[in-house]
Amino acid sequence: MANATHHGALNMILHFAGLGSMGLGMALSCLRAGLEVHGADTNPDRLAALVAGGGQALQPDSPKADALVCVVLNAEQTRNVLFGAAALADRLRPGGVILSCATVAPAFAREMEAEAEARGLCYLDAPISGGSIKAASGQLSIMAAGKPEAFAAARPVLDAMATTVFELGDTAGPGSAMKAVNQMLAGVHIAAMAEAMTFGMTQGVAPDRFLEVIRQCAGTSWMLENRAPHIVAGDYSPHSSVNIWPKDLGIVLDIAREARFPAPITAAALQQYLAAAGMGLGQEDDAAVAKVYARNAGLTLPGEA
Amino acid sequence: MANATHHGALNMILHFAGLGSMGLGMALSCLRAGLEVHGADTNPDRLAALVAGGGQALQPDSPKADALVCVVLNAEQTRNVLFGAAALADRLRPGGVILSCATVAPAFAREMEAEAEARGLCYLDAPISGGSIKAASGQLSIMAAGKPEAFAAARPVLDAMATTVFELGDTAGPGSAMKAVNQMLAGVHIAAMAEAMTFGMTQGVAPDRFLEVIRQCAGTSWMLENRAPHIVAGDYSPHSSVNIWPKDLGIVLDIAREARFPAPITAAALQQYLAAAGMGLGQEDDAAVAKVYARNAGLTLPGEA
Repeated sequence: MANATHHGALNMILHFAGLGSMGLGMALSCLRAGLEVHGADTNPDRLAALVAGGGQALQPDSPKADALVCVVLNAEQTRNVLFGAAALADRLRPGGVILSCATVAPAFAREMEAEAEARGLCYLDAPISGGSIKAASGQLSIMAAGKPEAFAAARPVLDAMATTVFELGDTAGPGSAMKAVNQMLAGVHIAAMAEAMTFGMTQGVAPDRFLEVIRQCAGTSWMLENRAPHIVAGDYSPHSSVNIWPKDLGIVLDIAREARFPAPITAAALQQYLAAAGMGLGQEDDAAVAKVYARNAGLTLPGEA
Repeated sequence: MANATHHGALNMILHFAGLGSMGLGMALSCLRAGLEVHGADTNPDRLAALVAGGGQALQPDSPKADALVCVVLNAEQTRNVLFGAAALADRLRPGGVILSCATVAPAFAREMEAEAEARGLCYLDAPISGGSIKAASGQLSIMAAGKPEAFAAARPVLDAMATTVFELGDTAGPGSAMKAVNQMLAGVHIAAMAEAMTFGMTQGVAPDRFLEVIRQCAGTSWMLENRAPHIVAGDYSPHSSVNIWPKDLGIVLDIAREARFPAPITAAALQQYLAAAGMGLGQEDDAAVAKVYARNAGLTLPGEA
């Protein structure tokens, strides 16, 4: 499934909505794979970066697309891009495919699929995982679900953006469900790492020692190995920002509440991210949730005065 | 650091207090390494298993020991074994070493070290990690701290029991501190895995699919990969029981409270283990914490009627 360019891909026309930290890298990966990309973003700097990489700005007279990749923040933006104010769905050729990548509720994904099919379009529920670096290198994981014809139409785009495509069901919904499950764990694990690292500091365990030992022990997690080094280095340049988590854990807990599913650990983790955002850290790397713990316990993290 | 037998180890006499799921395997690993083991346990079946493996039951006329390995449940039992009712510290030769493996507070470890040194003995703060299978194969990780002479005296025993010995400080305390940090994360990660797997079930994500996908994604953890298969298989034979967690997370939160450190995620996880124990699942594998979530949300886990 690695970045192979399929026959026909060279003639494929993509519209790309959302050129943020994930979307721009994904669009550039599609360009490298030989696809034609017309992109849209409210930020002209992001559009300029796409053009510098060989893409074009989506214009009123741009050609109709074979596929529309929608990489926006949430459900509301997704609806606006596809069928609302922007109505980019109307600019797909008949039978074209929408790849919807935002983290949304499974029920919303099913609703969007129905809207797409009512217009004679295919819809792929296609949340993404892997972060901005893998987005830029075409090495994302995609948790995908949709009808076989949606997968077939989207295949060259999936191949350009991802090394792993999980095919989770033959209708929209399961992709978003699995993404919600993954975000629940990822969000909990980052905050738990911060809780444990700062707890260790109260017991004389230095952050670098914590990372060295725990990454080799049963207490480790993918997120611990990825994010704890940011705290050890005192570097909160955002790879993925604090603000992601009130959004994504909020979606998770909205879905859980709707299903009458109590999720006390996730709820506790969300409070810590809200505190981080409330402290003004929303734009920092999500490892900055450690600063909530440090403040509460009177600790000084690496790199702090 | 792998199971090498040092010169002199063949003549080394060990007393072993506690032959439970961890202790018996550790004692048998010491026997395989050529050490002489005299063991004690309140359960005659465990003693018989030691004898069957080439060890001996500790008797009033057993020879004095070069090292005492104490693998009991908690601080109270540790104190009783070492200096209380059992007073096994009195049966070490002068300069002999105590390896204390229970999960205890760092302050308690320092207190035990002082008691040992007042008697002319060495003390190694030596909590263990890795589970019963690695205990039986001599492949534990040990989070050790103590004076250089304690490490030197304990070395053949450490080599017999562990593949990884973290040397965390030159006085007792840091070993127990790191163990508490590790247990905090391990306990949170098991419960978070159960929370996410059952949340996924409410969204149509089957447990086996959860395991297959999430283990390859950013939401994974060591504990998820180790424990989620138990739920998928519907097999709650105890490798590590639910009852471990009210004890270990209780110790963690006692230490945290003493340090005025708020640990909301750990506190939420502890409540789920308490609910599991309250449901009568204390003796089951700790993955049975999933049954708390399933009951609360009306879900049927794999293998249930």
